[in-house]
Formats: sequence, structure tokens, C-alpha cells
Amino acid sequence: MANDRRRLIVVSNRGPVVHARDETGGIEARRGGGGLVTALDSLAEHLDVTWVASAISDGDRLVAAEARGEPVEERSRAGSPYLLRLVEHNPAEYARYYNVVANPMLWFVQHRLWDLARAPCVDEQFREAWEQGYALVNRAFADAVCEELEETPEAAVFFHDYHLYLAPRFVRERRPDATLAHFVHIPWVSPDYWGVLPADMRRAVHDGLLANDLVGFHTERWRRTFVNAAVRLLDAERADSAVAYDGRRTTTVARPISVDPSEFDALGVDEAVLACQADLRQGRPERLIVRVDRTDPSKNILRGLRAFELLLARHPEHRGRVRLLALLHPSRQEIPEYAAYTAEIESAAADLNDRAGAVAVDLRLADDFPLSIAAYKEYDVLFVNAIFDGLNLVAKEGPLVNEHDGVLVLSENAGAAEELAPWALVVNPFDVGDQAEALHRALAMSVDERRGRLDGLRTHIREHDASRWVQGVLADLDRIIPARRG
Amino acid sequence: MANDRRRLIVVSNRGPVVHARDETGGIEARRGGGGLVTALDSLAEHLDVTWVASAISDGDRLVAAEARGEPVEERSRAGSPYLLRLVEHNPAEYARYYNVVANPMLWFVQHRLWDLARAPCVDEQFREAWEQGYALVNRAFADAVCEELEETPEAAVFFHDYHLYLAPRFVRERRPDATLAHFVHIPWVSPDYWGVLPADMRRAVHDGLLANDLVGFHTERWRRTFVNAAVRLLDAERADSAVAYDGRRTTTVARPISVDPSEFDALGVDEAVLACQADLRQGRPERLIVRVDRTDPSKNILRGLRAFELLLARHPEHRGRVRLLALLHPSRQEIPEYAAYTAEIESAAADLNDRAGAVAVDLRLADDFPLSIAAYKEYDVLFVNAIFDGLNLVAKEGPLVNEHDGVLVLSENAGAAEELAPWALVVNPFDVGDQAEALHRALAMSVDERRGRLDGLRTHIREHDASRWVQGVLADLDRIIPARRG
Repeated sequence: MANDRRRLIVVSNRGPVVHARDETGGIEARRGGGGLVTALDSLAEHLDVTWVASAISDGDRLVAAEARGEPVEERSRAGSPYLLRLVEHNPAEYARYYNVVANPMLWFVQHRLWDLARAPCVDEQFREAWEQGYALVNRAFADAVCEELEETPEAAVFFHDYHLYLAPRFVRERRPDATLAHFVHIPWVSPDYWGVLPADMRRAVHDGLLANDLVGFHTERWRRTFVNAAVRLLDAERADSAVAYDGRRTTTVARPISVDPSEFDALGVDEAVLACQADLRQGRPERLIVRVDRTDPSKNILRGLRAFELLLARHPEHRGRVRLLALLHPSRQEIPEYAAYTAEIESAAADLNDRAGAVAVDLRLADDFPLSIAAYKEYDVLFVNAIFDGLNLVAKEGPLVNEHDGVLVLSENAGAAEELAPWALVVNPFDVGDQAEALHRALAMSVDERRGRLDGLRTHIREHDASRWVQGVLADLDRIIPARRG
Repeated sequence: MANDRRRLIVVSNRGPVVHARDETGGIEARRGGGGLVTALDSLAEHLDVTWVASAISDGDRLVAAEARGEPVEERSRAGSPYLLRLVEHNPAEYARYYNVVANPMLWFVQHRLWDLARAPCVDEQFREAWEQGYALVNRAFADAVCEELEETPEAAVFFHDYHLYLAPRFVRERRPDATLAHFVHIPWVSPDYWGVLPADMRRAVHDGLLANDLVGFHTERWRRTFVNAAVRLLDAERADSAVAYDGRRTTTVARPISVDPSEFDALGVDEAVLACQADLRQGRPERLIVRVDRTDPSKNILRGLRAFELLLARHPEHRGRVRLLALLHPSRQEIPEYAAYTAEIESAAADLNDRAGAVAVDLRLADDFPLSIAAYKEYDVLFVNAIFDGLNLVAKEGPLVNEHDGVLVLSENAGAAEELAPWALVVNPFDVGDQAEALHRALAMSVDERRGRLDGLRTHIREHDASRWVQGVLADLDRIIPARRG
């Protein structure tokens, strides 16, 4: 395959690097975090990649202005070169696209987070955000992709996530023969819940995705729900795992993304991580429950606190001996729903500690990657109780570096449960009683059982790593490209 | 058919009459309101009916105690005799069954009303309410049904609604050959939303319903969603419109319930109604928008107020000339979620009137049936914007008596929209902009178009009245009874 390098245009809102001024006043590219970037970045080892992404930082905009719309060369973590094309947006349009439509609206719809008796209230302002924000930014992405396709018409296009549902249709209208694929990294919901959006918008979301030749999800569950929703909302037709619509056929696949174990092997002995771990060890109680999340309502942090308090109430032997370390990265705080949720978490944790008369919950609101890895190493229980989650990489990262035969307590609504259920304690995210009992069971479990479960997780995760996801995605593209070209 | 009267055991939580002391200290039976009672009560014209219902009032309990578990004779509105068997429950068990499990839990799940980031928190208390409340009350109903079946083994059993999901299975276990049917009067939701309940409970709901030979819904949409959910949650098999499960076959049907037009013909000239109408006329502005609802979050009253205020903001010509008359029956106020919602409505309406500097919204919190009928007669626009609604009988009642060529604005998520959409202005319940424009369009509509739409509604509703629903249900039972007996 290395001899037959193909061209791939990766399209995502956030790119693999953020440009910022370094100490000398020059511009440096800093690698972004997150599993998606890690996995996609490794595509550059296999293919000639051009990555199209929004210019987000001031540094990005400087780079984009200097490049005058041309791609600039970057290098992947492994050193392979790829091209990065930054798309500049009007700030008002981008704000409507990102802070009104993508978040909270689409995110809240797809994680079922709206308090439907009260919100959302769709009105002219939202319609303006859709038409004069979401659609325009998608249009700008489509324009950039079409320009790239002018240069390399044989390239396949690989869109990502909920920021770009309309772009494939815009590209398809101008390039009927292009090879288009899309990966959705968040859950899909039933047609009734899509009804929160006006009919033209919920149809446009599904119509946009069906302009692709291939649509991928992390789980069979989200894939199936997408097919059902498309059939219902667009009168599309089901054809095995494909959808027939508007004279075309869109294949759907379930391919759970993963992590790069070698990255975590290295992190496990990273100096910053070891320093954090030494700190944690000094202060740690006998047993440590860890959660690592963004402060997103989908992560179910409030119920997690309730479950932990129930654990202490029902099993007083844990009081003073078990602590919940919650490492929470404040996320999207410019969106009122997120700021409110973060405030509720702080208040609930403080109340819990007041009632406990001790630091039962150690809440740290920060984005501290080395500390997260150190906490992964130190946990006795890793607590992932998401309300809904496309996949949840924490559940795959933690077991790779853990040094305490730690047990994974995992929500049945995290996509990762479709893979990891055999070795995790699976919980209902709405049932705090169930979660409290799972935490207790994890704490009370014999070391043999804990070790067996951790080994099972590690073996699965190492065998189903990010490179396997990449190979799977490449195989999917291989299947559709000849079909499209043949 | 009259010569071949069959026996039917109707089972519903609330019975057709409530017993109360009259002025002389004796016990009188007062007919309950609601379309369900009207429709079911007319079954007595066709069949030998025994109605099994909870003893709810003190009067009911007196009657039940006096009857020592035997049925008492009652008469339907048309004068046909039937038997009423009142089931007594332990008050604590009944409270758990009714105020914790049925409402808010099942109602909120099936109307998607939970603010999932925060509620519900399922815990031991809820599990106790399920096991020591919902299951026990369902068991008591099943016991009463089985006793009736001892007497008349050939009778068909007809369960109703979300209070009784477990009873059919309890009966089936003891009477494998009984003919069981169930009608669900509220929406069904996708398996993902059923995930709010712990796995054993969500399975028990579907397992209980599939113990019936027949399950009916008001719309094709809810029927289809039920089949999908049962297939997913129980590994049941789809077989056309039936579900194959546990060695049995359950047929599903969509039969929208309706009203009795002759009842509304009579109400139109009822003295109490005419007195209310005279009052309304005296005080009414040029144009009147009417809504008649329980104060239930599913009814979308808060967004209705937003939409009405948007109407006045965007179309100032309506200011001072159009009023929203909101007749709201305070409902389930002993449940905190309902009390909070009612308080929010009062506060939002007061704020709106403060901003308008006039009585733009005439909010009346009361259960005043004659006033509701008078308002039906007087509306220019009937506003039904439910978030989700199994059917919504208001949309069928209002047009029958209206005297103003009034226009129906109807939520796409009210079951009635499946029938009435051709003559209504259909709106998205989450889109207050859409609702404001529909209200404006209704107010601006020519009298010819209004009359044409109203005629269309009336013709449909008169042709698809309650007796047609009853005939349909009887035909459904006819289809399953020979199949079961043959």
C-alpha cells in the first residue's frame, strides 16, 4: 500500500495543530490533544493527506493569511509530512455556527440533554444561526474541499463529526463523482428526538450525511439508529447496512476508534506524569476512585457525585478511606448551559464535602494532561458514567497505564461499552443506586478478579488500537472507491 | 351482535364513576370526565361489561367494602347496565404506584420530559416504589381480573394505559389461554429513551405488554415505535404488524380514539355552557386564541406563552385586539415536578402581561368544563402545541362546537396530527417562531379558508367518532378471539 499512496482530504472543524506565538515572537504549531487527532494524524503514515480545518486561534489566522488560501506543510507525530489548509471564517458567522448550532443545539440533541419542557426555544435567532452561521461555515469548508479536488480529483474526502453535516451535500452538488466519507463521533438519536429541530433542518442533517458514499460511527447502535432515522425522516430506503436515497447508495459502518498504546507506554514514564503521580501518591487515601472528563452535561458528573455519596452512606466502611478524584476540564464555558453545569458541579461537590466533614471529593477543574495520566496510573476504580457518549476514550486510556489492578465502572450508554462490557462493571447512568453498588463491588473485588478484568481490557485495547481503526477506515474507503470509480 | 353479547372485562386505574357522599349523606356515583371514559362506557351498549378499577375516593372505598369484593351494578351514560368492580389498595402502595412510578416516571419517560442531565436519579427509593408499589398494584388488578375470569372464562380482558403494564403478564401466568388486549393512550418512545429505566424494569414494561394478544395505540407512529422498542429490548421478532415473543404472537394496531359528537351537540346548548359563553362574549376582545389543557409539562404551555408574545412583537397590529385565553386544569399538583411547572406558568403569564401593559393572556387555573366548552365555541384560533401527546382530544372537541370559523393550530407531535393535519396548521412544538407565524396566519386567514378547514375537521371527526373507535376495537377483538379459541 505504501507504494500505492493515495490522496485523502481530511476535513474537521478543529485541526491537528493550533498555531500560537512562541517565546521569540515567531509562530509555532502545537499539537492538539484528543484521540481523534492522534488517530487521524496517523493517516499521514499511509496516505498523502491534506487536512482542511478552521483557522481558530489568532496564530491560525496569521498562518492562513500568509498562505493566501494555500495549504502549509506540517508533520505528523511520527514525522510524516502532510498539508494543512486553514479555512478562515467571519467571526460572527463562526460564533453562530459553533456556539449556537453545533453547541449546544446539535450536541444537546444527539446526547438527549435538552430539558424539553423548557428548552430549546427555536426561534428566528436560531434560524439565523443555522442559515447565517452553520450553513455558511459548512459552505466555506465545501468551497475549500472543492478547490482541493480541482487539484487532485482522485482524492477521497473524509469529513468529521457534527460540525460538518451540510458540507458533503454542498460538495456533492458540485462534484457528483467525488468519493466522500464522513465519520460521526457522537451518538445518533431517534427521529422523534431529531424533531426538536424544525423539519427542514433535521432533514438537511440527514440529507447532508447521505450525500456521502460512506458514513461511519463508533458503534453498531449509533449506526443502526442513523439508518432508522434517515429512513423515517427522508423516506430513504434501507438496503442491508446501506441506505438508498436520491438515486445513490450510502454505506454505513460501525468502527470504534481507539488509542495508540505506544503513546501511553511513553506517557507512563513521562517526567511530568511521574511528578504528578508522586504528588498524588503522597496525598492519596487508601482507595482512589478517579474520573476524567470535560465539564459537559453528557458526562453525568452530578449523578456521579450522588452515586459516590450513596456509596459512603450505604457502606460506611469506605468513609475516610475512599476518595473520588474528579479531574474535570472546564469546557465550552462561553455557552450558558455549560457554565451553569460547571457551577452546579462545584456547588454539589462542596456540599458533599461539607456533609462528609472531609475531602471525600477532590474536585480539580483544570486541563492538566500529565495529572490525568498520573490519575490513570493511580486509580482503584475508573468511573465513566456518561449519560450518552459516542465512544469515550477515557475508558480505553486508563487501563493501559493503570498500576493498581483498577476496575472500570462503565455506563451502558458509552459507545465503548459495546466493546468493553465483558471486563467492565456496566451501569445504568440514570440509576445512582446501581452506580453506588458497582463502585462498592469494584472496591470489594478480589485482586485476582480485578487483575483478570484489567488484563482483559488491556488485551482488547492493544489488539484494537488506533492503527487498527485507521486500517479499517482505509479498507472501508478501498471498498467504496472502486465501486465509485468502476 | 346484540344477540351474541360477549363478555368484556375492562381494566383501568380510574373507573367510569367516582363515589361520593351526596347531600343526604348517601353515596352517589358521579361520572368521571375525559374521552376515555366516554368511549369505554359506550362499550356497555355492545357487550356485557365488567369494569375493574381502583377504589380512589373515600366513597369508592366505602362501596368496595360494602360489596366485599363483588362487582356492583352501574349504568352507562346511555343507560346500559354494567358491573363495576373496585379494587382496594394499600394507600402507601398506591401512592408509590401513582405518584412515583406512573407519574412522573413513566409519563415523563413516554413524553420525553426528563431533564436528563439532572433527573431522574433512579435509586433504592424508586426501586422500592416499583417493587412495593407499581408491581403490587398491578398484581392486585391481575388478581381481580383472574377472579372475574373464574366466573366467565370466555371473557376478553381489555387493559388500559401506563398504569397497568405489568398486569397482563401476571394474568397470563395464571390464565395461559385468556384473551388479553391492552390500549396505550400515550406516546411510545425509542429503546434509548426507555434506557432511563433500569434494564429489568424497561424489559418488564415490554414483556408485560407482550403478554397481551393485542396492543393498541392511537397512531401508527407510536405503534411502530413500540414494535421497534420491543424488538430491541426483548429480542422479540417483528412479524408484519405483530411481534413474536416467548412462543406467542402479539398483534399491534393503530386506532385513534375520538369523541361522541352528540355529546358535544348537547353541550353546545347546555345552560351552564351558554352562561359561560355570555360571560366570555362580554369580555372578549376582537380575536380570541384559546388553549384548554391540564397544567402538564407535556402540554408545552410555557413555549405557548413565548410564541404568543412573539406574535405580538412581530405583528403589532394584534396588540390590544387579540387575547390568549388559557384554561388550565391544575393537574397532579402533589407531584413536585407538576407544582413547579404550574408556578412557572403563572409567573410567565404575569410577566407577559406586565410587559404588554394589558391582559394579553387571560390565564384561568381551574377545572371548569362548561367554561371550556364555551371557549371552544368562541375561539378564532384553537392552540394545541403539545411537546408530545398520545392523541389530544381537545383538537377533536373544539371544532365540533366552534361558532367563529376557528382555525386549529396543532403540534406535529400530537397524535391527532396523524389524522387532522390536512385541515390544521401544523407546527413544531419546539419552534416558537413557527408557532407565532402559524397563529398569525390563522388570524389573517380568509373566512372562506377558515370555514373550509373547519368543515374538513368536522366532517372527519363526525365520521371518525368514538363509536367508530369502539367498533374498530370490537373488530380487533373479534379477530383475535377466534384465533385464540380456534
